[in-house]
Amino acid sequence: MTRVWNFSAGPGALPESVLRRAAVDMLDWQGCGMGVMEMSHRGKEYMSIHAQALADVRELLAVPDNYKVLFMQGGAIGENAIIPLNLIGRGDGADYVVTGSWSKKSEKEARKYGKTRIVANTESEAGFTTVPALADWQLSDNPAYVFTCPNETVVGVEYPFEPDLAQVGQGDVPVVADLSSSILSRPIDVSKYGLIFAGAQKNIGPAGVTLVIVREDLIGHALDICPSAFDYKTVADNDSMYNTPPTYPIYISGLVFQWLKAQGGLAAIERMNVAKAELLYRCIDGSALYENRVDKACRSRMNVPFFLKDEALNDAFLAGAKEADLVQIKGHKSVGGMRASIYNAMPLAGVQALVDYMVEFERSRG
Amino acid sequence: MTRVWNFSAGPGALPESVLRRAAVDMLDWQGCGMGVMEMSHRGKEYMSIHAQALADVRELLAVPDNYKVLFMQGGAIGENAIIPLNLIGRGDGADYVVTGSWSKKSEKEARKYGKTRIVANTESEAGFTTVPALADWQLSDNPAYVFTCPNETVVGVEYPFEPDLAQVGQGDVPVVADLSSSILSRPIDVSKYGLIFAGAQKNIGPAGVTLVIVREDLIGHALDICPSAFDYKTVADNDSMYNTPPTYPIYISGLVFQWLKAQGGLAAIERMNVAKAELLYRCIDGSALYENRVDKACRSRMNVPFFLKDEALNDAFLAGAKEADLVQIKGHKSVGGMRASIYNAMPLAGVQALVDYMVEFERSRG
Repeated sequence: MTRVWNFSAGPGALPESVLRRAAVDMLDWQGCGMGVMEMSHRGKEYMSIHAQALADVRELLAVPDNYKVLFMQGGAIGENAIIPLNLIGRGDGADYVVTGSWSKKSEKEARKYGKTRIVANTESEAGFTTVPALADWQLSDNPAYVFTCPNETVVGVEYPFEPDLAQVGQGDVPVVADLSSSILSRPIDVSKYGLIFAGAQKNIGPAGVTLVIVREDLIGHALDICPSAFDYKTVADNDSMYNTPPTYPIYISGLVFQWLKAQGGLAAIERMNVAKAELLYRCIDGSALYENRVDKACRSRMNVPFFLKDEALNDAFLAGAKEADLVQIKGHKSVGGMRASIYNAMPLAGVQALVDYMVEFERSRG
Repeated sequence: MTRVWNFSAGPGALPESVLRRAAVDMLDWQGCGMGVMEMSHRGKEYMSIHAQALADVRELLAVPDNYKVLFMQGGAIGENAIIPLNLIGRGDGADYVVTGSWSKKSEKEARKYGKTRIVANTESEAGFTTVPALADWQLSDNPAYVFTCPNETVVGVEYPFEPDLAQVGQGDVPVVADLSSSILSRPIDVSKYGLIFAGAQKNIGPAGVTLVIVREDLIGHALDICPSAFDYKTVADNDSMYNTPPTYPIYISGLVFQWLKAQGGLAAIERMNVAKAELLYRCIDGSALYENRVDKACRSRMNVPFFLKDEALNDAFLAGAKEADLVQIKGHKSVGGMRASIYNAMPLAGVQALVDYMVEFERSRG
């Protein structure tokens, strides 16, 4: 068996030790005679897995006591509707900060449920290559929330700050953050956010589970038309078991949380992520062939898009990469070029292998 | 490793050969160097798994060409809202046939989106132990659809007929059917239904994926407030990849579809299911200790609730069952007593082991 280096933007690579554990547990979890997929979600075996996963994510992110941690379904795209369904009734519409294709899509979906305002937008001036300073957000008077996407997976832009609205005198407005592609990649201060959500399939676990962390006072304000299965109050009151949860994806996510703790937690994983990103950006910046077009201060540590200045070499670059067992490097179709996603589960050795290949490709073909 | 006999109502037992295949594939699917959980849903490897699963379920159920097969998220409880969000705008409200706790819950949820009418209800007269004849359904003039739950998991009631409204001169009204606990347990005539849905975790695969089979003319009528991720048109137009699908649960479901084909398809699995159900009901009916309270004509082949006439023996019955590696036999909390769910993946040997235990328990303790 040869494992490849998988730079997929999501679903993405998982730690090998997690997969090995899952394979061992497949027919018989801890001697109970059942695999995890087969367990009643109401049985003591699955209940213990569920509770441990919730406790571990709380510990890793130091989630304050006045926040609920929920496992939901529907992914981040589902949350684009579920968030306004739950929150927009609290204020006079909602504010959106648009810094890439994901936050742009989120704003469009929210229009179904109330008034939205784009309070900052980097598309036309900067082509989604930067992040507007907090002071430049044109916040409205009484928004239900301010929506942000602090790491944009497609364009590779990441906020170089936490969106702490207290710094601009708006500390009472809840910040909603789509952290699908950067959650658990570094420590964050959860108390600066009203709601954090993340599709699991990038930095948490398998596709099919969505992590939601929501401040308790924001729960219980859903519109009448909100489906019960997607009402934060119903989900919270039932410990994420109002409907049958996606048990196996939650179990794998739990194994990833334990793997993260064994790595030393988020401070340790952040050091590794900084080292990986520096290695790759240094290669790009030191090259005559490759370029990254994002403001240096706003470059994503997780998703590194880059272009070959001679685009005629793209196919040869991708073919050679595949031969070197470096896969899923093609850029998103809306952007073109290349993109390497280097989530927590990608080891430094994988980034080094990519850099080695890029250097050799430039030497021989550039 | 000792595998138990798992009678869980869902998530339920999976075929052992499916789990063994999944364990082997875990780190490296067919030599591609990635596990299925790690695959980009846009990559050729996962796309082939996805397409094969869709093709196999079409083949097993002989789905006509004018129906779409969708993989969604949110489970059957999610669909309780998603169905009216998509369909109720087509007519003057919707009709509901209430034959158990699941269809009762479905009707309640649908009220958020339009006018509902309960056109038959077996709760007060019969305590959910029977199914009203088609001729007794008080259908309204122009319903968007008639909602049915042909197998009620909690109370163990199953329609002894297919709800073919042409027989009562209402062939134009689409029948919606929640087949969560009976799909793939026998051949059905899909053309008799407008929409079929099923949470996977009973007779298909792992929790976290919902199968929806919908006639094409019913697609494209969603209310404006329907989330894009749950709009059948968006999902169908994007081959169930508008948002990242729950890839691993779909992969396991696909392995189950292949296992079913290897068993001889639905006609063969139905014969096995009839044999299993007859064995268990015969044991109950021939006993002085056990009883099943459902009309014999409407007994579920999948979910067999039964009671010990001396309820003081319940705890001893459950404890002895556990010692005999027979697990998840306790009845639903709303009903009490016992319940054995004997889905496709439960072999005859498992039902025989349960019957042997029941006979011996009655002999020694009854």
